[in-house]
Amino acid sequence: MQQLINKNSIKEKSVVIISGGLDSTTLLYDIISQGYDVYALSFNYNQRHKKELLYAQKTCKKLGIPHKIVDISNLNELLQGSSLTSSDISTPHGKYDEESMKQTVVPNRNMILLSIAAGYAISLKATKLFYGAHSGDHSVYPDCRPEFIQKLKETIAIADWHKVELLAPYSDMDKGDIVIRGIELKVPYQDTWSCYEGGDIPCSKCGACNERAEAFQKAEIKDPLGENV
Amino acid sequence: MQQLINKNSIKEKSVVIISGGLDSTTLLYDIISQGYDVYALSFNYNQRHKKELLYAQKTCKKLGIPHKIVDISNLNELLQGSSLTSSDISTPHGKYDEESMKQTVVPNRNMILLSIAAGYAISLKATKLFYGAHSGDHSVYPDCRPEFIQKLKETIAIADWHKVELLAPYSDMDKGDIVIRGIELKVPYQDTWSCYEGGDIPCSKCGACNERAEAFQKAEIKDPLGENV
Repeated sequence: MQQLINKNSIKEKSVVIISGGLDSTTLLYDIISQGYDVYALSFNYNQRHKKELLYAQKTCKKLGIPHKIVDISNLNELLQGSSLTSSDISTPHGKYDEESMKQTVVPNRNMILLSIAAGYAISLKATKLFYGAHSGDHSVYPDCRPEFIQKLKETIAIADWHKVELLAPYSDMDKGDIVIRGIELKVPYQDTWSCYEGGDIPCSKCGACNERAEAFQKAEIKDPLGENV
Repeated sequence: MQQLINKNSIKEKSVVIISGGLDSTTLLYDIISQGYDVYALSFNYNQRHKKELLYAQKTCKKLGIPHKIVDISNLNELLQGSSLTSSDISTPHGKYDEESMKQTVVPNRNMILLSIAAGYAISLKATKLFYGAHSGDHSVYPDCRPEFIQKLKETIAIADWHKVELLAPYSDMDKGDIVIRGIELKVPYQDTWSCYEGGDIPCSKCGACNERAEAFQKAEIKDPLGENV
């Protein structure tokens, strides 16, 4: 894992994108533990699993950190073809294999979200922008690959006179490693939502549910969400 | 000027960002003349000079090309500090000198707009994305500098499995050169709007009006807008 060391005694401002899922929630606890002054940002793009935003909200409230939810759902008319936003395409079930999960790709989603978040960081004069991409995303989401994150980091670094550093500290970790890190940080995983269906309880069938189950299996603990929904 | 040669006999799809101002309108005429299948995109970010969007609309209608206006005005709550979106900060008058015009910088605006436009290009399977940054913008807008455009180009190129090429063919030209090019292309400049104030007639005082006047002076023609508003 990339080391995140905050050397200053005055708190450094940072922005973190939080979806309400387990990766970004772990990241939020992680950077708070490192002493950053954290501003959380979430996006409503009318995702089928919009429920995750309520989890993001709950977590930020619990931690007492400022949280904004930006509505970018009117971009959906432009960004067609993903089952995460189109109600007429069904969510693929089963494992996160490349072919079925490519349907869940919103064109250029991460670049759009990170550009907006970088604008927010610039206006706050924050020096760091964190997001929770992890190694399991690489083959499915082109905009989670390390080479893409690197280019985006270089672009954001020169986007303004005020310099913002993009950091994706989990990009070399898989979801299981993230849960192991989260256990150390005492992240209450019942406060996170992963299922793409966004129903009352997780569907246990979609790629996100499968991936979450594998992560808890690797960490050798029981997913507390099942007991609390 | 960067050469834009469309070698294919089948029309290549391209997306162009059009503000309704003279640079992007000239660019639109330019790429149509080169045989591209063009999709125009404009943004409503609640700019004080929102009037420019009506000009963009008029031009696209006249040319019979598809045009979408995306409302991203709810990002303004995040992106503070610019007189282009805040009604309580007055628009700086006079020449486009660095200090006064920096007030008109919307944090990370171009990266946000281009990320969205790249997502649109990906979903249309367009291969080119054009925007009208020019050399006069460099010192004022960090996100118009050639090094920033280059990084953004490299980022967009790997943002998706479908490759989109970002092009800013006027980035080495000044506004006067653009008008000279536009005259060759018979661009009806009465259909373009520049003034930041967005009143009934151009204010003749703001940086955009000053810059426009200088451009027509360099091209040695009269600005037809004054006669037609």
